[in-house]
Amino acid sequence: MKSAKFLDSHGDLLEAPLFAHVATLRPDDTPQVNPMWFVWRDGVIRLTCTTDRQKHQNVVHDPRVSLSVNDPESPYRYIEVRGRVVAIEPDPDGTFFTQLADRYGMDFGGPPEDKARRVVLVVRPEAFSGQ
Amino acid sequence: MKSAKFLDSHGDLLEAPLFAHVATLRPDDTPQVNPMWFVWRDGVIRLTCTTDRQKHQNVVHDPRVSLSVNDPESPYRYIEVRGRVVAIEPDPDGTFFTQLADRYGMDFGGPPEDKARRVVLVVRPEAFSGQ
Repeated sequence: MKSAKFLDSHGDLLEAPLFAHVATLRPDDTPQVNPMWFVWRDGVIRLTCTTDRQKHQNVVHDPRVSLSVNDPESPYRYIEVRGRVVAIEPDPDGTFFTQLADRYGMDFGGPPEDKARRVVLVVRPEAFSGQ
Repeated sequence: MKSAKFLDSHGDLLEAPLFAHVATLRPDDTPQVNPMWFVWRDGVIRLTCTTDRQKHQNVVHDPRVSLSVNDPESPYRYIEVRGRVVAIEPDPDGTFFTQLADRYGMDFGGPPEDKARRVVLVVRPEAFSGQ
């Protein structure tokens, strides 16, 4: 992907435990956006979600998403990642949720109560941009 | 709007000079999202843009937008504003741009070089949510 070289200057924003503002498409094709935890590893971005959330319904309906992460130290510096949810994987023990919680410095003392509904949204980037 | 009471607890996030992550729809209906300055006044949100930006083309194509603002002191606390661009107003002297720059503590020492292409995107909220 041509825009992948953008990662040379802005990839640190995907490494740090920042919040990604994740835009999805509602079933009526209006955009929805809200902050989420994420991890960038092995060429994909993973997000945690539950199957009862509107966001889950959105990506089942249309897998196209976009994420915006800006630098808290320099908020004009940001990266946008456009991509597609290529897999929705069950996380029935909340294992991935707990890994993310660790990454963000949260300790819930065990798996989340909603673990039965937890899933991993696997996003494959298609373009990187920003400033 | 029923969800407007959400402003009682989260309206401060629209008063402060925070960055809104603004989701728009590209002409191929994929979402785009990036951080922007904004001001919330008289029941509408105003954003500054230039007519050569993809974002401008997006809202001309489809006026439906969504904004996500989270609290830097408590990043799990956020507001999402869904709405519609109801007007695109010329800002040929960069007056609105300069007002926003003042709000965000930036001093450009005069109007922006791209003032001839500056416009104001006026967003009328249709729903508020968050946590």
